[in-house]
Amino acid sequence: MRTIEWKNGVVVTIDQTKLPSTVEFFEIRTCAQMAEAIKTMKIRGAPLLGVAAAYGLALTVCNSKASTKEGLLAELNDSAELLRKTRPTAVNLFWGVERILRKAGESSGNLSGVKDLVIQEAQRMADEDVKTNRAIGENGARLIKDGDVILTHCNAGSLATVDYGTALAVIRVAKEQGKRVRVFATETRPKLQGARLTAFELKRDNTPVTLITDCMVGYVMYKSLVNKVIVGADRIVKDAVFNKIGTYTIAVLAYEHKIPFYVAAPKSTFDLAHYADGVTIEERNPEEVTFCGGQKIAPEGVDVLNPAFDITPLKYITAVICEDKVLSPAEFKKLSFNSAINS
Amino acid sequence: MRTIEWKNGVVVTIDQTKLPSTVEFFEIRTCAQMAEAIKTMKIRGAPLLGVAAAYGLALTVCNSKASTKEGLLAELNDSAELLRKTRPTAVNLFWGVERILRKAGESSGNLSGVKDLVIQEAQRMADEDVKTNRAIGENGARLIKDGDVILTHCNAGSLATVDYGTALAVIRVAKEQGKRVRVFATETRPKLQGARLTAFELKRDNTPVTLITDCMVGYVMYKSLVNKVIVGADRIVKDAVFNKIGTYTIAVLAYEHKIPFYVAAPKSTFDLAHYADGVTIEERNPEEVTFCGGQKIAPEGVDVLNPAFDITPLKYITAVICEDKVLSPAEFKKLSFNSAINS
Repeated sequence: MRTIEWKNGVVVTIDQTKLPSTVEFFEIRTCAQMAEAIKTMKIRGAPLLGVAAAYGLALTVCNSKASTKEGLLAELNDSAELLRKTRPTAVNLFWGVERILRKAGESSGNLSGVKDLVIQEAQRMADEDVKTNRAIGENGARLIKDGDVILTHCNAGSLATVDYGTALAVIRVAKEQGKRVRVFATETRPKLQGARLTAFELKRDNTPVTLITDCMVGYVMYKSLVNKVIVGADRIVKDAVFNKIGTYTIAVLAYEHKIPFYVAAPKSTFDLAHYADGVTIEERNPEEVTFCGGQKIAPEGVDVLNPAFDITPLKYITAVICEDKVLSPAEFKKLSFNSAINS
Repeated sequence: MRTIEWKNGVVVTIDQTKLPSTVEFFEIRTCAQMAEAIKTMKIRGAPLLGVAAAYGLALTVCNSKASTKEGLLAELNDSAELLRKTRPTAVNLFWGVERILRKAGESSGNLSGVKDLVIQEAQRMADEDVKTNRAIGENGARLIKDGDVILTHCNAGSLATVDYGTALAVIRVAKEQGKRVRVFATETRPKLQGARLTAFELKRDNTPVTLITDCMVGYVMYKSLVNKVIVGADRIVKDAVFNKIGTYTIAVLAYEHKIPFYVAAPKSTFDLAHYADGVTIEERNPEEVTFCGGQKIAPEGVDVLNPAFDITPLKYITAVICEDKVLSPAEFKKLSFNSAINS
């Protein structure tokens, strides 16, 4: 079951804010609706955001009343700007937008030819995402041993992608290979993607999963209850990994306990044009922190810090698992292409 | 305003499960009610538990129908057993129980003399707690500089004690000395004592406080937003500090970022008869993790780990601030008394 699908000019996807209590698919018919769904995190997960952005532009061409190719390209540029403003940190979203814009801009076809091309490209990106994740899973599964207990943070599962996941793809392939694997999932406050999405996915797969609060990570490492960490990524720059807030905390703990810390992510997450200093970290609504489960949990008017992501320097990372291979930090640094966005 | 008070044979205390939305005092009239209030965490905080246990025994003598001194002592022993079973990790509770039992056992008075002695001793312990915390605050405040930004975890404030707090006493005295201090409070899942209690106390005091989720600690240290950590303790053994789950995670992060990590706790928290291995860590109800704000946040039937405390080896601690002095880990290890319980 894919997290997102294109059905005759309509995008159908799961409302991730309602999981795990309700599995509800909803329709997105315009690029503005897509931007809103991304902003409110009904759609989330770096690889999924890349495909969702492409589908957003596909909706723009479907709905377009432009009578010229130039008019259509102008509409696509407006839609691209709308999408770019939704969430600043995950690079896949920008990658998805740029890939579609380039394809449309390079096309020598007529108005209808460009429309077809955009829709086909968006669908190709969705199909590629599934293949890419499978390859990440196969590359990563070589690192997994029978009996491993893996800690993961947030959700880097099928719900964060079109299907299969990134960090969870590694676990899925390892299981297919007959390896017994258990998982510790951190709840991932404030948005609880670990409790709501990862625990849900793994239970659905019959993978043994234990839910912990985020501050228990030190304890489970101290007690030697886990022996590997695998997380996803929202953007990997020349010197660091941007991923869900809390990732850096776990990476430092893994480093101190000599536990391997792997980042599983497609190359569309690589942004080799930037260092960590050059990336904006999205600051989200304080109410995500002051409320939990719909109830106010903090005193009125308290100040809050609510960064959606943090920065993990490559020093703390054992390897990056991408669709091509498993890259050590040294190999990652040597990558010759200038930026995944422009590749 | 004291967190707990003795009023003519009745204990009056704040229901800490209802904060910050409701400040509600309630009456405790029997030792069984006291044990229940401790178990359900209406009363919590290591130093407060010591006094609450003593008051529990004072209620036993008030309600006793024993006609002999031996009968009364037997009732006290039964009540002590009830109290000891409530929460296994915080040592102050055991310290409070033992101190009252010893006082009663050693008394040469008659039935009514023993009753008076127990009640007086419990009240003396409450008064001592306030003085002790003030002394902790004064010792600790010497470590605080104007402009410091201090991270604290859980609640080691007046709500965790009879009054004044331990970690927060340090901040209170520093402020009295004219030092400008800001605080980062971790929300402290699963029970949210940081969001509910510490943020509440500090706002009431007009101390600038920023609330973060537990997994943001790495980020705020990476960004150099805090320069000291002060936490309380539930038990300090020969080689480690037991404190609220999440403390160890913060200690490792502070160590990696070379940020001083202080533990502020009265000597009644010291348990020099044990090493970390010999202490039971309370495992609490999984629903504390699978529910938040009264709403289920995890899939049905998911496995959960829910230790209430973790273990921070002395290696990660810069100093222990007690009512006598500031002890380096080396000085702490040299302490000659065998056990605070027996001191």
